[in-house]
Amino acid sequence: MALIVAKFGGTSVADIERIERAADKVAREVEAGHKVVVVVSAMSGVTNTLVGYCSDISPMHDLREYDTVVSSGEQITAGLMAMALQKRGVSARSWLGWQIPILTDNIHGKARIENIDTEELHKRLDSGEVAVVPGFQGVTEHNRVATLGRGGSDTSAVGLAAALKADRCDIYTDVSGVYTADPRIVPAAKKIHKISYEEMLELASLGSKVLQTRSVEMGAKNGVPIQVLSSFEEDVGSARKGTLVTTEDQIMEQELVSGIAHNSDEAKITVVGVEDVPGVAARLFDPLAKASVNVDMIVQNIATDGRTDMTFTVPRGELDLAVKTLKDDTGLSYSDIVVNDNLAKISVVGIGMKSHAGVANTMFRTLAEKNINIHVISTSEIKISVLIEADYTELAVRSLHAAYGLDES
Amino acid sequence: MALIVAKFGGTSVADIERIERAADKVAREVEAGHKVVVVVSAMSGVTNTLVGYCSDISPMHDLREYDTVVSSGEQITAGLMAMALQKRGVSARSWLGWQIPILTDNIHGKARIENIDTEELHKRLDSGEVAVVPGFQGVTEHNRVATLGRGGSDTSAVGLAAALKADRCDIYTDVSGVYTADPRIVPAAKKIHKISYEEMLELASLGSKVLQTRSVEMGAKNGVPIQVLSSFEEDVGSARKGTLVTTEDQIMEQELVSGIAHNSDEAKITVVGVEDVPGVAARLFDPLAKASVNVDMIVQNIATDGRTDMTFTVPRGELDLAVKTLKDDTGLSYSDIVVNDNLAKISVVGIGMKSHAGVANTMFRTLAEKNINIHVISTSEIKISVLIEADYTELAVRSLHAAYGLDES
Repeated sequence: MALIVAKFGGTSVADIERIERAADKVAREVEAGHKVVVVVSAMSGVTNTLVGYCSDISPMHDLREYDTVVSSGEQITAGLMAMALQKRGVSARSWLGWQIPILTDNIHGKARIENIDTEELHKRLDSGEVAVVPGFQGVTEHNRVATLGRGGSDTSAVGLAAALKADRCDIYTDVSGVYTADPRIVPAAKKIHKISYEEMLELASLGSKVLQTRSVEMGAKNGVPIQVLSSFEEDVGSARKGTLVTTEDQIMEQELVSGIAHNSDEAKITVVGVEDVPGVAARLFDPLAKASVNVDMIVQNIATDGRTDMTFTVPRGELDLAVKTLKDDTGLSYSDIVVNDNLAKISVVGIGMKSHAGVANTMFRTLAEKNINIHVISTSEIKISVLIEADYTELAVRSLHAAYGLDES
Repeated sequence: MALIVAKFGGTSVADIERIERAADKVAREVEAGHKVVVVVSAMSGVTNTLVGYCSDISPMHDLREYDTVVSSGEQITAGLMAMALQKRGVSARSWLGWQIPILTDNIHGKARIENIDTEELHKRLDSGEVAVVPGFQGVTEHNRVATLGRGGSDTSAVGLAAALKADRCDIYTDVSGVYTADPRIVPAAKKIHKISYEEMLELASLGSKVLQTRSVEMGAKNGVPIQVLSSFEEDVGSARKGTLVTTEDQIMEQELVSGIAHNSDEAKITVVGVEDVPGVAARLFDPLAKASVNVDMIVQNIATDGRTDMTFTVPRGELDLAVKTLKDDTGLSYSDIVVNDNLAKISVVGIGMKSHAGVANTMFRTLAEKNINIHVISTSEIKISVLIEADYTELAVRSLHAAYGLDES
């Protein structure tokens, strides 16, 4: 008898047949006696079409109108899902963002949820009615539709789960959970059954693009257990076969390392011989931020003769823009800019490494044994990332997966 | 300095390029100093797609959810139109049905407008802002989205014009006005510059499908002048080149006959030898109404021996359903059912015929001269309709157009 928020992403509601299959899953949860709030994305492709219309009219369009346009995709799915549930004898109705209301701030295009009115929803849920809520949308104090940014339906789902004090937020997607590595590269990769919010954040931002980062942060802040599971498999959320993202203390058997992530889309830039004075980093990275270049790893070498080298990585597609911005807008003196656009970032993530020495060493030794050269190293409390030649990506991930004992027995 | 409601139908906003052209027209009206409310339909094809989704899930779907789904088409166009106007330097914003609000009754799928709050709209219009309103939609007292039925955007436009006491409601469509006959059949057909609401109602329901019948009724009731004009021609509404539908007393030079309408989609059913007793018509037509058969002309012959023949017409596509319903559900005794599904209805419409004898006679004489046989005759105050063999449709329309002196000189 749990209260569950079940979110279905774009591929899980891609057409009428998939909406019907998603409705089957919800109906099974209702039959088992659970109260269910369903959050739906737009049918896959719809949001891109709508965003395209807006860009076609004007790249500088009014974001309030953009939100009015693009929010309609989820509105459509919500009505259809309510119909599909009713057809199965499940009492259901759609609740648009302004009907609940889900109040957001006024930052159109990437609004944040400020408050969700749950009184009427609780009443309806208690009476056995399923609430179907379009993801991605809310309403501002000015009564305008606002959207939460791309992938915002995950945030809608976790936000509703937090406001309703739900027992769990199930995120149905096109993978069956979070794995210890990409199964296409590591056939021996295992599904992770429980993982901490912190590890999930590191894995998510490193390329296991299963959950929107903001939704994991929101889950952590509000203590909402989030389960990632496949909408294309038979099991429903209550069977607990997916990956549960939860607090550290809920994870009994903590692995030293939870997973090996990789990102093959990295380019490295080294600005050679910049002055080693206060403020130089700001003068370097401010213009890049203004140009919307996403800087990832940053390493600064030890200064010699009052000059230093600054190395950082950007997505490969932003390399040209980054170099142009460095040359035109920083006003820095430097002796050279050196780029390498054929690198991959490999990361070892695990909350267990906080209390264990030797984790980094295992990584360096394993890579050395395979003659893989490390270009850059960067560490956090629960993550070690290295930059290597992209050609060695698969070899590195597979070797590390085995070295940390993650291979399925 | 007029207040104008300008409505653009589905073909006039079919894609981004057409939305841009429609925005050009609105911008020209604004530049000329007019206050403008824009009402938009869904981009052509969108509503059919959405209706198809609903039917695919369940033919018996919840109409509240249907309204939530299908209303999104106009929502999209409204946001895009507001953007297109802003790009032209015109201050504009979209107003969804629930934001204004346009309050409707609770008859989802074919709701009627009960009230439109105009205070804020007037304020914005006075400040020079264009209001862009999605047609077809409103909101019920229960805060659910309601739609006004197919073609309801015309009703939204005229309803807004009435509530705002607009000077004129311009309906931009894919024809340049209402003609004295179908120009594809009668090359000499002329555009009608002014026509009364009553004549327009007769012409509209007879096949000149330019304006939704309900919107004309609403215009007549509220005294809103409605102008039909083409969105594909250069002129804007204020150039007054379209067809103005207005009150009879606004029309100075009243033609005896305004136009010749035809409908080639008629099937005739004669129920032979039914009892001539009170209530027999109700017993015949009640089951047809329940089966949603649209009965048009009805003629009852003089009774002989206590038996009579009942003749009526239905759209050709509903003939089988009508006959089946007659046989199964009326419980009437009759000697035979005779059908003819190859007929056309030709109508002569004109408010002038109220005060002139001889109009009907001209029709009968003209058809007789061409050896066209009349199957059924039906008349109203401003209309005479006859049923003829469909093969003679074009000949009849052309001959009558000439006989009433409507040919362009």
